[in-house]
Amino acid sequence: MGDGAFTVVATDGAARAGVLRTAHGDVPTPAFMPVGTKATVKGIDPEALRSLGARMVLANTYHLHFRPGADTIEALGGLHRFMGWEGPILTDSGGFQVFSLRDTILATDEGGVSFRSVYDGREERFTPELAADVQRQLGSDVAMCLDICLPADAAPAELELAVARTTAWARRQLAAPRAAGQLVFGIAQGGTHPELRRRSLEEIAALGCDGHALGGLSVGEERELMLDTVGWAAPLLPAGRPRYFMGIGDPEGILAVIERGIDMFDCVLPTRLGRTGSALTWAGRLNLRNRCYSRDSQPLDPSCSCPACARFSRAYLRHLVNQQELLGLILLSLHNVRFLLDLTAGARVAIERGEFGVYRDAALARIAQGQSAREVAK
Amino acid sequence: MGDGAFTVVATDGAARAGVLRTAHGDVPTPAFMPVGTKATVKGIDPEALRSLGARMVLANTYHLHFRPGADTIEALGGLHRFMGWEGPILTDSGGFQVFSLRDTILATDEGGVSFRSVYDGREERFTPELAADVQRQLGSDVAMCLDICLPADAAPAELELAVARTTAWARRQLAAPRAAGQLVFGIAQGGTHPELRRRSLEEIAALGCDGHALGGLSVGEERELMLDTVGWAAPLLPAGRPRYFMGIGDPEGILAVIERGIDMFDCVLPTRLGRTGSALTWAGRLNLRNRCYSRDSQPLDPSCSCPACARFSRAYLRHLVNQQELLGLILLSLHNVRFLLDLTAGARVAIERGEFGVYRDAALARIAQGQSAREVAK
Repeated sequence: MGDGAFTVVATDGAARAGVLRTAHGDVPTPAFMPVGTKATVKGIDPEALRSLGARMVLANTYHLHFRPGADTIEALGGLHRFMGWEGPILTDSGGFQVFSLRDTILATDEGGVSFRSVYDGREERFTPELAADVQRQLGSDVAMCLDICLPADAAPAELELAVARTTAWARRQLAAPRAAGQLVFGIAQGGTHPELRRRSLEEIAALGCDGHALGGLSVGEERELMLDTVGWAAPLLPAGRPRYFMGIGDPEGILAVIERGIDMFDCVLPTRLGRTGSALTWAGRLNLRNRCYSRDSQPLDPSCSCPACARFSRAYLRHLVNQQELLGLILLSLHNVRFLLDLTAGARVAIERGEFGVYRDAALARIAQGQSAREVAK
Repeated sequence: MGDGAFTVVATDGAARAGVLRTAHGDVPTPAFMPVGTKATVKGIDPEALRSLGARMVLANTYHLHFRPGADTIEALGGLHRFMGWEGPILTDSGGFQVFSLRDTILATDEGGVSFRSVYDGREERFTPELAADVQRQLGSDVAMCLDICLPADAAPAELELAVARTTAWARRQLAAPRAAGQLVFGIAQGGTHPELRRRSLEEIAALGCDGHALGGLSVGEERELMLDTVGWAAPLLPAGRPRYFMGIGDPEGILAVIERGIDMFDCVLPTRLGRTGSALTWAGRLNLRNRCYSRDSQPLDPSCSCPACARFSRAYLRHLVNQQELLGLILLSLHNVRFLLDLTAGARVAIERGEFGVYRDAALARIAQGQSAREVAK
């Protein structure tokens, strides 16, 4: 099943295993995409990232447009060469940044959105045409459409206007020039409002995008309501195109969206947690600042083979974190990314075997048991 | 020539090529030792450090004594296992830290030095016996004697007392238990005062240390006077033992002390420069913040094969530095350490060929020409 750049190779309930074919290689799905906001996954060398098993990374149109500028990146041979990552890259549209930095917005109108840059306060404007052009210059494998991303609790009238404009903007962006081989994904909005979400899905799906994202669902709304929405909305998207949920990275959330038919997702969580001294493990989340690790000679996660787990103890990592040593941030970031890649790879295998439910339950039970065992031990 | 753990394999004027044999492997000399103050060379994974060509690293008794504590490191199997570095490690004595944090000193007496810890302000005391014991627990390959390190412009009477106590302390420390296979180096003080420096050298050399350091010469005195002192002092040390100059890391300085008979040296310069956005190259020092690199597709140094130079452009490194991205600090630190290791390895080959003078002149001319060519281009 599938057409164009995406093939579904197995399903298990709503969950899908597939392959996304891009100009820079194939990506097995479900796929967790580490986030390289400013053309670098924070603290991780691209060669190390590949060794961890990452296949596709995300980069940020808003930030790269302003620093160092898409002209510069294009002049240097495109984003892949610039950042030393030869694998597939997805670039977001910048819409999420503009609309989540709400204080900087000056005006949203039919044509686009005007705002003040967070870099220098200058007035700037994003339009669908600019989003297309910047991403063409970056040369990403998947470009995202510029959307209007409102908080889930926005007023229905606001949401309705955002849905209408998001569709109109996507139509314009899809008509604009793109990089050779570049796929373009549309984004459905509508918050958790059933009618508006459905309308947005139908309108975006009708445009013939190479893939579809569910946007605006990780912005502060309740987890249950968000998952309910994913649960009924994802299956309404064309089955033969990849489905991307923007911004989820906790193990429970990843398994929940995979279960509901999502193929791709991204999150800054693993690197952000790494920089604040926390590790995602099969025994739950470890805060390395905790005194209980001060003489703990075990690896972070005995079942992990990442560089942090293969060569260092929790005690050493705690020392590095407490002393604010760069190597601590690096090693924890490596580990956390690896953990989510492994979790996702395991989900894919389980889907192919028709055992996704068993895998999900076992993974969640293992994480919960480890967490509570450690809490009892304290 | 040489006895015990050190063999001189070639000389060229005063310059020497040798091998230091330690419990964790041989170290060809001259040797640049990257500094892992808190049991990590800032921003560099030990595996990467080895790939760069580092053979021996330095770690800091003062800092490790307080955080995480030598008991903890001993309980975890010693410093090598703790920090994931299987090669030789030299630990300083903590004397340099205590005496360079002058505001924290409470009293220096025959027995030792009392001071307030920079970590929590508590009153602490270092004695030669404690310096021996902490380094025994750490299990370093080379332990340094606790010395009294005064500024080069200290009053002669002060210097004289420091020299006398440094000798007495070294005698006590050498009599204390040490780790299996651990070498102990004495440190000669005396500033740039000819008579006191000579007296310190003679007294320390008479103690039968495994090696000798020239201390107190990188603390703010004039470069010329320091080099003059090294020039006449180094040859007075026993020829069959390694000579260590503490704290030099600029290319000119490294070549100058090698020329004067120094075998080992260390410095935080390469990693500190890396963290502030500067690169040591064969074309001089590059400040990556400079606008001239914004579209520069060249590697940092075309003749370098480190990860930064092999895979990234100056423009990308500049972007990372300007955006305060961790990867920028990491890559520049890797490169700078590699540059000094390569410079030092080249010096060794030149000494073996009897061409050290030619090597030094060519290296300095190349660096100076590159620097001035770039200044003209601006």
